[in-house]
Amino acid sequence: MDEPLLIRDRTAIVGVGHTEYAKSIDRSEKRLALEAILAALADAGIAPYEVDGLSSYTLETTDETEIARNLGLGDLTWFSQVGYGGGAGCGVVGQAAMAVATGQCRVAVAWRSRKRGAASARPWAGVAERVKGNHQWTRPFGLLRPVDEIAMLTRRYMHDHGATRPQLGAVAVTVRRHANRNPDAMMHAKTLTLEQYLDARWVSEPLCLFDNCLESDGAAAVVITGTDRARDLPGPPVLIHGFAQAVPRQHQVMTNYFCDDPLLGPSHACASLLWRHAAFGPGDVDVAQLYDAFSPLVPLSLEGYGFCGRGEGASFGEGDRLAFDGPGRIGGGLPVNTSGGGMSEAYLHGFNLIVEGVRQMRGTSRSQVPGATTCLVTSGEGVPTSALLLRSDDR
Amino acid sequence: MDEPLLIRDRTAIVGVGHTEYAKSIDRSEKRLALEAILAALADAGIAPYEVDGLSSYTLETTDETEIARNLGLGDLTWFSQVGYGGGAGCGVVGQAAMAVATGQCRVAVAWRSRKRGAASARPWAGVAERVKGNHQWTRPFGLLRPVDEIAMLTRRYMHDHGATRPQLGAVAVTVRRHANRNPDAMMHAKTLTLEQYLDARWVSEPLCLFDNCLESDGAAAVVITGTDRARDLPGPPVLIHGFAQAVPRQHQVMTNYFCDDPLLGPSHACASLLWRHAAFGPGDVDVAQLYDAFSPLVPLSLEGYGFCGRGEGASFGEGDRLAFDGPGRIGGGLPVNTSGGGMSEAYLHGFNLIVEGVRQMRGTSRSQVPGATTCLVTSGEGVPTSALLLRSDDR
Repeated sequence: MDEPLLIRDRTAIVGVGHTEYAKSIDRSEKRLALEAILAALADAGIAPYEVDGLSSYTLETTDETEIARNLGLGDLTWFSQVGYGGGAGCGVVGQAAMAVATGQCRVAVAWRSRKRGAASARPWAGVAERVKGNHQWTRPFGLLRPVDEIAMLTRRYMHDHGATRPQLGAVAVTVRRHANRNPDAMMHAKTLTLEQYLDARWVSEPLCLFDNCLESDGAAAVVITGTDRARDLPGPPVLIHGFAQAVPRQHQVMTNYFCDDPLLGPSHACASLLWRHAAFGPGDVDVAQLYDAFSPLVPLSLEGYGFCGRGEGASFGEGDRLAFDGPGRIGGGLPVNTSGGGMSEAYLHGFNLIVEGVRQMRGTSRSQVPGATTCLVTSGEGVPTSALLLRSDDR
Repeated sequence: MDEPLLIRDRTAIVGVGHTEYAKSIDRSEKRLALEAILAALADAGIAPYEVDGLSSYTLETTDETEIARNLGLGDLTWFSQVGYGGGAGCGVVGQAAMAVATGQCRVAVAWRSRKRGAASARPWAGVAERVKGNHQWTRPFGLLRPVDEIAMLTRRYMHDHGATRPQLGAVAVTVRRHANRNPDAMMHAKTLTLEQYLDARWVSEPLCLFDNCLESDGAAAVVITGTDRARDLPGPPVLIHGFAQAVPRQHQVMTNYFCDDPLLGPSHACASLLWRHAAFGPGDVDVAQLYDAFSPLVPLSLEGYGFCGRGEGASFGEGDRLAFDGPGRIGGGLPVNTSGGGMSEAYLHGFNLIVEGVRQMRGTSRSQVPGATTCLVTSGEGVPTSALLLRSDDR
């Protein structure tokens, strides 16, 4: 058999950057992308002309040539894109790691820039998208928005496994508390109690306002290079231990209701490859940034990546068990979404979760988990997905 | 310094497949894609359920989940897309090789399906595309179609280096002769003489009808797996020796007229990485499939990949020096586009060039170069590009 050339720990994230996050920013997506990338390069201590690889989402509107020309990048020798919106983020970074590890480029930048008013921000909202392909089986029957599609999945989750609204509320309340500690978070100044959560208006029953991610403008970027080079840079490298992507067999994007087990989402298939290539397992993860466009995706990901059994994700997150200052792994919990995540920091199709993963591994999060050296970051559950394992450099 | 994990010869193309090529096919792009992929898997002797990686062009409309569900593929653990139309093809296959080599998947399929009437077939033709971004600097001044943009570049090539129409005609006539030997080629039954070439109508002066690629419907696919596995399959493996992509600094897509040297195209930057990772050089290449949406791209690529000096590409291709039965390398030539290529077999944004590269390495081309064991395949010149080095398995 062919022994794979595992990329494990061969590359590192050496810079992160982002713009402000806000409901509406009066600068172009291109400008936001350039600002975030420049900030990430400055953070890394790497000059723009050294960049020779670029990767982003297929829904990104700022293209490689525009980014390269405007920033004065060098000759690019690698570029790629990953599809499926919120499922792409970790794949975008992971593929850049693969390209650096195999010598296809030396310094790669991955980014996401998003404005709600722009064409790429809400691809589902286009009229033409509403009834084509698989959408013909669901859109005419009232599943118009992603929240409607996940509401249906949530109802099944409640029915099959007894998940409750207070359990989903615990996720929303915990991540809001993290956002209250993070000055960059859009919800920094707004507290949230379980009572407020339970009283909130429906967006798509059983999902209320606070089960949903924010509507955000903003951009974020990360810089990836080889681990040896990373160790010569000013900051501490954050090693990319592994990554995986997944489209489980017979999958339908967002409306995967027709298979044997609709709750056996893409995270299960993604976890399988991720852990096969890793030198540690779910029991060794100190902190996680779990994609949270909607609150029920958090317990589903907890199950998918092996932190608890099938159907146990909702109860796993009760009380303060997902809090940065909760019981932690030793007490049966797992600190999650320590920046506030998509529901309370900003929603950039999951890319800001990667930035927070890096902060945790550097020890610089505003809600730092003491002694954390390993972090799982995941992308969208319910769509073709991806995940990253990060770890601090123990050399 | 980090030693890269070179993917050299770690993976192989083990199956190729394509539909018929025709001006208009009355089946959907999805159906054509499925047919081509099934043919490639049958050629490889690999069952659909073993496929766990997919890659294609960003302009591909048939998406991974649709392909996977319709063919009964397994859980996918890797997928990606590459942008820039005709520049993408070799990158699509190269990235699949990278994913297999690093263990992110085991069996990858890369494909391109195209119908001229479909949205993705001629992205430049959309009204909304005409004046946005860089296009605002050229479209209002008459550069409407890709052929207009390349005509401008060709004029510069003639002016700077003395390239002539008969020299471009030699390319068109030679590849047509190859197509006349290939029953799958759209131009199989139509001969072309230099006189006919010189008498043909302008499409965009100095480019005539026969300087242009065909208008084609059709799909093609290739299957990539690890070299050890490949050696256990029924057919002879075609090793992926290396690949590279390139966006040269300051590049503008198709209208790169504003830099110091507009003729120093993406192929130069791509060649640099390609040869750096290779165990052989341009002097060792037996046959090449050079992207030929327009005839002048062939001499420009001959220069870019190092088969001759700057400005010498047009004279390099005179007479029968690009013919499969010409003087060959030993006589100062190089057999090129032995299936007829984009100008005379079919135009699938370059993907059929990869299929023909595999045939040459298997010894099964209709215009087989005797004893050929190495093949260069290139993607679009004038856009962000990519290239593949293939070789037959000498184990």
